Amino acid sequence: MEQRGPAYRLDADDVPAHWYNILADLPVEVPPPRPARRIAPADGEERALRPQLPLSMYRQSTGRARYVEIPAEVREQYQRWRPTPLYRATGLERALGTPAHIYYKYEGTSPSGSHKLNTALAQVYYYRRSGVREIVTGTGAGQWGSALAMACHPYGIGCTAFMVRCSYEQKPQRGTLMRLNGARVVVSPSELTEVGRAALRADPDSPGSLGIANAEAIEYASGRAGSRFSIGSGENHVLLHQTVIGEEALRQMALAGEFPDVVIGAMGAGSNFAGLAFPFFREASVRDAATRFVAVESEACPKMTRGRYLADHTDLSGVTPLTKMYTLGHRFSAYQIHAGGLRYHGAAPIVSAMYDKGLVEAVAYGQNRVFDSGTTFARAENVVPAPEAAHAVACAIDEALAAKERGERRVILFGVSGHGLLDLVAYDKFLAGELVDFAPSDEDIETSLGGRME
Amino acid sequence: MEQRGPAYRLDADDVPAHWYNILADLPVEVPPPRPARRIAPADGEERALRPQLPLSMYRQSTGRARYVEIPAEVREQYQRWRPTPLYRATGLERALGTPAHIYYKYEGTSPSGSHKLNTALAQVYYYRRSGVREIVTGTGAGQWGSALAMACHPYGIGCTAFMVRCSYEQKPQRGTLMRLNGARVVVSPSELTEVGRAALRADPDSPGSLGIANAEAIEYASGRAGSRFSIGSGENHVLLHQTVIGEEALRQMALAGEFPDVVIGAMGAGSNFAGLAFPFFREASVRDAATRFVAVESEACPKMTRGRYLADHTDLSGVTPLTKMYTLGHRFSAYQIHAGGLRYHGAAPIVSAMYDKGLVEAVAYGQNRVFDSGTTFARAENVVPAPEAAHAVACAIDEALAAKERGERRVILFGVSGHGLLDLVAYDKFLAGELVDFAPSDEDIETSLGGRME
Repeated sequence: MEQRGPAYRLDADDVPAHWYNILADLPVEVPPPRPARRIAPADGEERALRPQLPLSMYRQSTGRARYVEIPAEVREQYQRWRPTPLYRATGLERALGTPAHIYYKYEGTSPSGSHKLNTALAQVYYYRRSGVREIVTGTGAGQWGSALAMACHPYGIGCTAFMVRCSYEQKPQRGTLMRLNGARVVVSPSELTEVGRAALRADPDSPGSLGIANAEAIEYASGRAGSRFSIGSGENHVLLHQTVIGEEALRQMALAGEFPDVVIGAMGAGSNFAGLAFPFFREASVRDAATRFVAVESEACPKMTRGRYLADHTDLSGVTPLTKMYTLGHRFSAYQIHAGGLRYHGAAPIVSAMYDKGLVEAVAYGQNRVFDSGTTFARAENVVPAPEAAHAVACAIDEALAAKERGERRVILFGVSGHGLLDLVAYDKFLAGELVDFAPSDEDIETSLGGRME
Repeated sequence: MEQRGPAYRLDADDVPAHWYNILADLPVEVPPPRPARRIAPADGEERALRPQLPLSMYRQSTGRARYVEIPAEVREQYQRWRPTPLYRATGLERALGTPAHIYYKYEGTSPSGSHKLNTALAQVYYYRRSGVREIVTGTGAGQWGSALAMACHPYGIGCTAFMVRCSYEQKPQRGTLMRLNGARVVVSPSELTEVGRAALRADPDSPGSLGIANAEAIEYASGRAGSRFSIGSGENHVLLHQTVIGEEALRQMALAGEFPDVVIGAMGAGSNFAGLAFPFFREASVRDAATRFVAVESEACPKMTRGRYLADHTDLSGVTPLTKMYTLGHRFSAYQIHAGGLRYHGAAPIVSAMYDKGLVEAVAYGQNRVFDSGTTFARAENVVPAPEAAHAVACAIDEALAAKERGERRVILFGVSGHGLLDLVAYDKFLAGELVDFAPSDEDIETSLGGRME
């Protein structure tokens, strides 16, 4: 007779008072972005791309202070659902017959259904204080757009989300959820921007990409007074905001009386992975523990395992600063996997620098393997993981099976960034054997990178 | 600048140790069910309907002890997500401009997404201990089926769910969620049973009903060794299991320093309403408070506001015991509203007896009003309520607006039984103006009741 493993839960008072800034402790250099080019909006007038960040967030992106105080108002918002639970996955352990102890931190209990609300609430707080009246963004799978819409609406801040077309078609309910929360949803590529129109001219059936959606959002925001472009992952300050996840998990693992041998997170642009991993990276240094950190990407978008470490743009049009990162090239168009959040062409600069120095590992999985793992996890743990999160599940299962083979009692911790309740159509396709695995050829990647070897 | 209201959260240790049995305190008689008729399965052999309940649950259904200890194993399972949060709905208060204080208890954080898991885990525990190897059920909107599947799977107990056809078509992902959790999903009416075949002969396009689905489940289970029919609402023991909701909410309202003037819950068969309301009914008696209790049903299925208090069956085929309840007749076929959980023809015997004596009130809403309220709530509170729960929201809004009109500072508490993330298609239809309101005519109801006046 089986029984579920315990939940390690904390009180609302235990919501961290600080975010953790890994830049204070990192033994490697993270090159700062190089100045942006100029932007030419639809009206043809050339102007400098306006600074996107309120000073407070700019400082968070570049500062070296180890801890950044979470504003009281933001922390109170966190307390509506945080601390999120950390579970011992005893159901999964039994299903695998592994001696490993498996734990997962579950962010799917947030009102938006994923970790994205952690940074959305923080960003809206800072943008609002700097007088911004509308926030414009690009969203892939829609987790970010939903979170941003929820964060904007109660304050009367407008929210316009350019949503990657293939994701919009795969999960139309994400659009409904954004609209329900008062956001304007624009399917990208769109006719609203020059970038979008150019993308549609090049390929009327373009599935879209986060690079295109972000470029559209930037162009759109630049033409509107009181409007700012905001980004949901990758940037240093976004990774910072997500460290509430790892700070809580550190305390919860202490309640469980264990410390992980390996910490695993899905890798879109990197904020989910970093949010869980960074506080454990700090603590592992303190303990001199040989903990490994594994970022899991999709075989369809292998920026770390097959990309190159060079200065690239975060958007398709190339108006964003040149940022040193692992990338497949900002023109890379990933296959339409259901894990839309993992189709982004680059990796966060901090995670990239760490990967370059061997401080984090990376691994890639195809979507059939990923949904198979997600299904195993759903049955064993009663939690349907988002397709993005199911990548971390796949890796955790491999780690647990390796531990079984070697007869090792290892401690595995992974992040489940969100629930997959709006992705059940994809699970249905997997169960029906209709999902396709896809990986770009070396030539595809070379073409996208344009031969750059920097 | 707006801010969200606080969450009143409890520790895992605060999960109640007991369920509350209102039969111990009820000043009215709840007539026991009359013996069942005999069932004639497909093989034509007449046999008595086997007792469905393990002795432990039968005792819970009929006992008079005020408190029933929650088995340690079940309580540990509850602790994976319980206590659920209770929120002050300050966003909604501001949106309405009401002096009322509005609170809601939110059950959508459960792994299955609704309150149904509270009784599913308990029932599976008792059925398992009595040697049952398969549980068969009927499910309307699929909340019950999902919860039962999740509760069965980890113990290797088979789960077969007959799901009402119109609900299955409205929310196919509920079927996926059940299958992901290892259940067999049969669309009802089906060809698997005599009841289903007869329903299809009478109407090949039958949208189905919970009465038909339950009748199919009963017939199907009766033909299989080790198999039992289980029911997700209405019965005394199911209402008992759901009182964890109200017991927690009592403590949370104490944390908020208030006691409700009115407690509101959506009314399918009654376990959601009862689970929240009963502990407050007890406490209101102790305090001699004039708290009102309002059950909210759909205008499409107005068993309390327009039905009759008489002995009726809980299933279409009439093999279940004759139970005194408010009913529209067990052959009633409700219009295909999206709140599939409110399409059941009867009201729980205990709630019916209380309503008959004026101890609870009832009110009915049409679905456009309900989705309008659900949308208002989603925007104000960042929680998308299930269509069933949105009925309670509509009533709470009316109570808050009445308080505003009279300038009264009233305390309103309502239950949000589950999230509506698998019902966003219905919200989309509402936003597009495509939802139809429907109420049966007096003649429809008379016909269904067959002129019975008992």
